[in-house]
Amino acid sequence: MKKLIVSCSLLFLSLTAHGQESILGFTPESAAKQTQLEAEFEKKLNAANLDEWMQRMAAEPHWVGTAYGSELAQWMQKKFNSWGYDAQIATYDILFPYPLERVLEMTGPKPYRAKLTAVPVAGDPFTAQGDALLPSYNAFSTDGDVEAELVFVNYGIPKDYEALEKLGISVEGKIVIAKYQGSWRGIKPKLAAEKGAIGCIIYSDPQDDGYGRGDVYPKGAFKNSTGVQRGSVMDMPTYPGDVLTPGVGATKNAARLDRKDAPTITKIPVLPISYEDALPLLEALEGPVAPDNWKGGLPITYHIGPGPARVHLKLKFDWKLVPAHNVIATLKGSELPDQWVMRGNHHDAWVHGANDPVSGMVALMEEARAVGELAKKGQRPKRTLVYCGWDAEEPGLIGSTEWVEDHKKELQEKVVAYINTDGNGRGFLGVGGSHSLQTMVSEVAGAVTDPQRGVSVKERRRARDIINGGNGQFELYALGSGSDYTPFIQHAGIASLNLGFGGENAGGEYHTIYDTYPHYKRFKDPEFAYGVALANTAGRITLRLANADVLPFDFTQWHQTVSGYLEEIMTLTTTMRSTVEKHNQWVEKNFYELAADPKEPFKKPAKEPAVPYLDFTPLQNAMAQLEATIKTFSDMDKTTWSKEQRAALNAHLIKAEQVLTNENGLPRRSWYKHQIYAPGFYTGYGVKTLPGVREAVEQKNWKEAQEQIAVLENTLLDLNVYLKKGITFSN
Amino acid sequence: MKKLIVSCSLLFLSLTAHGQESILGFTPESAAKQTQLEAEFEKKLNAANLDEWMQRMAAEPHWVGTAYGSELAQWMQKKFNSWGYDAQIATYDILFPYPLERVLEMTGPKPYRAKLTAVPVAGDPFTAQGDALLPSYNAFSTDGDVEAELVFVNYGIPKDYEALEKLGISVEGKIVIAKYQGSWRGIKPKLAAEKGAIGCIIYSDPQDDGYGRGDVYPKGAFKNSTGVQRGSVMDMPTYPGDVLTPGVGATKNAARLDRKDAPTITKIPVLPISYEDALPLLEALEGPVAPDNWKGGLPITYHIGPGPARVHLKLKFDWKLVPAHNVIATLKGSELPDQWVMRGNHHDAWVHGANDPVSGMVALMEEARAVGELAKKGQRPKRTLVYCGWDAEEPGLIGSTEWVEDHKKELQEKVVAYINTDGNGRGFLGVGGSHSLQTMVSEVAGAVTDPQRGVSVKERRRARDIINGGNGQFELYALGSGSDYTPFIQHAGIASLNLGFGGENAGGEYHTIYDTYPHYKRFKDPEFAYGVALANTAGRITLRLANADVLPFDFTQWHQTVSGYLEEIMTLTTTMRSTVEKHNQWVEKNFYELAADPKEPFKKPAKEPAVPYLDFTPLQNAMAQLEATIKTFSDMDKTTWSKEQRAALNAHLIKAEQVLTNENGLPRRSWYKHQIYAPGFYTGYGVKTLPGVREAVEQKNWKEAQEQIAVLENTLLDLNVYLKKGITFSN
Repeated sequence: MKKLIVSCSLLFLSLTAHGQESILGFTPESAAKQTQLEAEFEKKLNAANLDEWMQRMAAEPHWVGTAYGSELAQWMQKKFNSWGYDAQIATYDILFPYPLERVLEMTGPKPYRAKLTAVPVAGDPFTAQGDALLPSYNAFSTDGDVEAELVFVNYGIPKDYEALEKLGISVEGKIVIAKYQGSWRGIKPKLAAEKGAIGCIIYSDPQDDGYGRGDVYPKGAFKNSTGVQRGSVMDMPTYPGDVLTPGVGATKNAARLDRKDAPTITKIPVLPISYEDALPLLEALEGPVAPDNWKGGLPITYHIGPGPARVHLKLKFDWKLVPAHNVIATLKGSELPDQWVMRGNHHDAWVHGANDPVSGMVALMEEARAVGELAKKGQRPKRTLVYCGWDAEEPGLIGSTEWVEDHKKELQEKVVAYINTDGNGRGFLGVGGSHSLQTMVSEVAGAVTDPQRGVSVKERRRARDIINGGNGQFELYALGSGSDYTPFIQHAGIASLNLGFGGENAGGEYHTIYDTYPHYKRFKDPEFAYGVALANTAGRITLRLANADVLPFDFTQWHQTVSGYLEEIMTLTTTMRSTVEKHNQWVEKNFYELAADPKEPFKKPAKEPAVPYLDFTPLQNAMAQLEATIKTFSDMDKTTWSKEQRAALNAHLIKAEQVLTNENGLPRRSWYKHQIYAPGFYTGYGVKTLPGVREAVEQKNWKEAQEQIAVLENTLLDLNVYLKKGITFSN
Repeated sequence: MKKLIVSCSLLFLSLTAHGQESILGFTPESAAKQTQLEAEFEKKLNAANLDEWMQRMAAEPHWVGTAYGSELAQWMQKKFNSWGYDAQIATYDILFPYPLERVLEMTGPKPYRAKLTAVPVAGDPFTAQGDALLPSYNAFSTDGDVEAELVFVNYGIPKDYEALEKLGISVEGKIVIAKYQGSWRGIKPKLAAEKGAIGCIIYSDPQDDGYGRGDVYPKGAFKNSTGVQRGSVMDMPTYPGDVLTPGVGATKNAARLDRKDAPTITKIPVLPISYEDALPLLEALEGPVAPDNWKGGLPITYHIGPGPARVHLKLKFDWKLVPAHNVIATLKGSELPDQWVMRGNHHDAWVHGANDPVSGMVALMEEARAVGELAKKGQRPKRTLVYCGWDAEEPGLIGSTEWVEDHKKELQEKVVAYINTDGNGRGFLGVGGSHSLQTMVSEVAGAVTDPQRGVSVKERRRARDIINGGNGQFELYALGSGSDYTPFIQHAGIASLNLGFGGENAGGEYHTIYDTYPHYKRFKDPEFAYGVALANTAGRITLRLANADVLPFDFTQWHQTVSGYLEEIMTLTTTMRSTVEKHNQWVEKNFYELAADPKEPFKKPAKEPAVPYLDFTPLQNAMAQLEATIKTFSDMDKTTWSKEQRAALNAHLIKAEQVLTNENGLPRRSWYKHQIYAPGFYTGYGVKTLPGVREAVEQKNWKEAQEQIAVLENTLLDLNVYLKKGITFSN
């Protein structure tokens, strides 16, 4: 309840005595102007443009390197230029594998040859483009030709291998078959290889992603029995972007690794398949029946194997450099041209990509068009805006990563924040990002009207959160990975946001030939009302960052959130300690064996090393110091400062997020510099907050955990010093 | 932890200084003798007998009224007589419907005629007995001939109808199709009829009871696509037993209701079907997609309807009186012939019933044989033993209920306790019953060795409980219904137990043609090792009750357990109050509508009346008084009392459980007299503890809840007076 009251009083505070809305970082006069500007901006947004542009962009497949993708980049460039931007195409030469040969066959006990082809469906001519459609595969699987017994490994994530261990089942020398979901797909072959498997098949189970969710395409939105999810399996948690040029832009003359030395290409061949193709394979498995929570929606009893099903997997790729065309459109700021607010969305798709990424790209374009029109009429933003259309996001955030690596120094000097979008749908606003931006985003969410319910998108989201047992607070989720914000925030330390609408647009089209315009119009956002809402939300965020008198970073929220992360990790070690203690007692007392069914496979577990007490006090003390500094900083009304004072503060604030990075990066993955947010080494897209400490704890690497506590302490103390410096600008 | 320590110290206390085991209710001398007796008893148990007798009993179908059932009763009678018992057959004439006509067909949108027949399987000749097998049906469904649109109602339990209400879907005038499980089957047609449905189909979903659990018969133990669960749907929570003679024995000349007036026959026709027959029906449904937790294991998207599937359901039964033959075998006590310890298991089966009930029946017989042999050799129990083989349990606990109703007065005078068994399997001991017997049963469980793991069955169960997060305490579950203890405990107020082994014998044979000897030997208890363990456990319990110097009732455990039930109900009202408060706020603030997808069906919920504060203090005060009395009583070492004092106390203790009954019974179901345990009015077998108060609270009938608090207060105060009286025998 206490938190709710705080949130309500903030709401009231945001109305001044004259009923005029106050805006974080704006003087009353500027706020009035900004309110007027945003109202005009909103009025200019036109759903018909989104619809028209989606039809154009999703007319043909346009993965990186295709002629149609290149054509679209030029088309976008022209559009941006026509809206008053200076649009350039920034091209990088990146390694991209195209599948030459894909064979998956069961060689015993009865033969089956996987079809590996999704069928065209009635009412959707785009699905009937045959050879123009990219064959289904996992990009950055290694070449391979293997044959072995099959083992079903559920989602193929760490806890699944723990369960196999308990059953005494090894995947050494086998080919594993894993369900999609439960982690980012690239984790599956990575872990399988670590465990000794020689091949990996990933399939979409109908319970998670098929008829178990709802009617299948074309009757409904969900995955039919032939649909296959494409996707990258490069080891992105090590580094994203071009596999041959880690840390530097893949320019024509960049130094490149030999492909055989590229650490982010998988160690074993991996192929995604449909549930139609998975059924005969899974049905032919014997061995223990899968645990209840492993079972899927196929009409069979799920067994683990190994075998007797044997499969032959052969994959051969055309490994060549292709051009990735980023579109970079700049609208120079009227007052502060060297402070940039960046917006981005990718434009490449696995196939047509009506939803992913076109639905987000067309919203970004409409936003840019409206902003451009305002600028033409004299309402040019104070800071420079940079709108980006990234290429090669799908194979591994390549276009954005290469561009950020190429321009890192300049970006770190100039960029206030990067605001990312990607596929968009109908429903509720979701925003992730730097928690120093949470208050500002929350204000914007309160200003955007939900197209279906008429209340603000913040209020609608609050209603859902509360009836689902939440506290109703507007909170940003922490960024892991999965879209183009990753190089900005996690590599360059630039404050970032990622936003979109969803929750009422479920379907199975993701990365399949069914992600088409007809599918989008029937099941996603038929009127493009939420496309407009996205442009409205992202546009207001962009314009506030561009015009703010004092950049709207609020570290009070940040401190609350990061304190929560620290609490989580401390609780985690306590829980791990008591779990290990209990486990060891149970091993001693033979409880596991007594409780086990003697007719089922069982491997007696071993005792585990005790969990030591880690010293978290350096972090607690650093957070306490930060709390005091942040209180002083937050209590100051910076909008009353002189223009010079504010200018000094703003220039300082731009780099505050960089203070949270460490040039050495995280252990074993130095590309990831940010100390608060990272994609999990064994989750992929899934975030790990305070990753250095948290992952060391999770991996029970106690020495490293204590070392990482020291590293994080320094980061936090650096921020403390940095914010104290900010306070001095008031003098 | 505290509880664990207590439990350990009890364990140590049960060894005297001489290493001799102490036994609750026995003097040291008697305990030594009893220990010796039980060891001899255990040695006599022979698994080969169980095997031989199961082959005999499960050779042919033997539901009530069959010639083979009658033959088995006589065969058992002869066996008991040969072991030194006086065995009689007590026959009642009960109404039993045999299916004459069963039609289920889909009349639109495409025709389908349900097969309603399970297929014979290779390797199991019993499944190929064709017309000798009882057709699959639900006994005590009314006759009917209805046609209507179909609605899928998940398990057809109260919360499913709440979900339908939220979606604005009514079953009025429709035929419902419900999955088996989630409640006792009889609840499904009862609720459906209350909601206005005109017919009810129940099917076994493969996720709950088919390939989703494991390989299907004959490859594995689980239900194949044609298997159908038979079973009674009479309204047993109102009263069990013969539908025409509630409260009195169905003797030849008993007054009988007209069938049309029998309140426990269903109001609408109901038929069970296989998942093969359910698939086309469910596949033909349209309307909203079922909520995620409604979805089953068929390879379809589950829709709710109503329609367009229309079904025609026609059922016609041969309603006639048939003889139910109970076998009652008495072994007169050597010292206290008018104090009876009763043991029972039913002998009728839906088809062959190898598991249900024969596996339990043959264990009971072997126990009786061993006890009889000991008696022949001069080790006759002090109290009288009565071993019972009940008929007509399957259609509604009819044989036992009629016998108990017929002999109620005598039983209430003489019976120390009733110990029930039913189908038995491999695994862990489970015991339910009167909590005054918990301490004694726990001691016995510590004395019986687990056949697979070599530790006591108590220790094995404790290991499993602890690794599953339990406290490891040996606790009795509370008795709901589902076997022949119900008339004893809930109608006559006789202390009762129900026990069996299981957890490692899962299968789908329950009430199908696949519950055969070959199935049992492959998947249940192949060596009959747990059949012997059951005879060993139940036999020791029986012999301790028969020979105890002081009847081993322990009210300390009882008080702890009942206090827990009271806490639960108090917490429940508090939770309900805050839930309603929140709900009403959310309705007021329009949160439900804001959170709902406008494209999905949604009915705006109404505000609910506030939950009043109920006065639980009468119960808290009564429990406090009881606690003091029980402490005094428990602290006395009654084994040191004189023989006369103990005799007086024992005669008194026999009727203590009856003090917990109330002659008026529960609201709207006066047959159920017990105030602590009852089957739930809307759960069926599932127990409701402190049922008068709990069900009134659950149904939000606050006036009745307060009235039932007063009724229960009187019951508890009566027990307090009664136990105080027991204390006076020490003078």
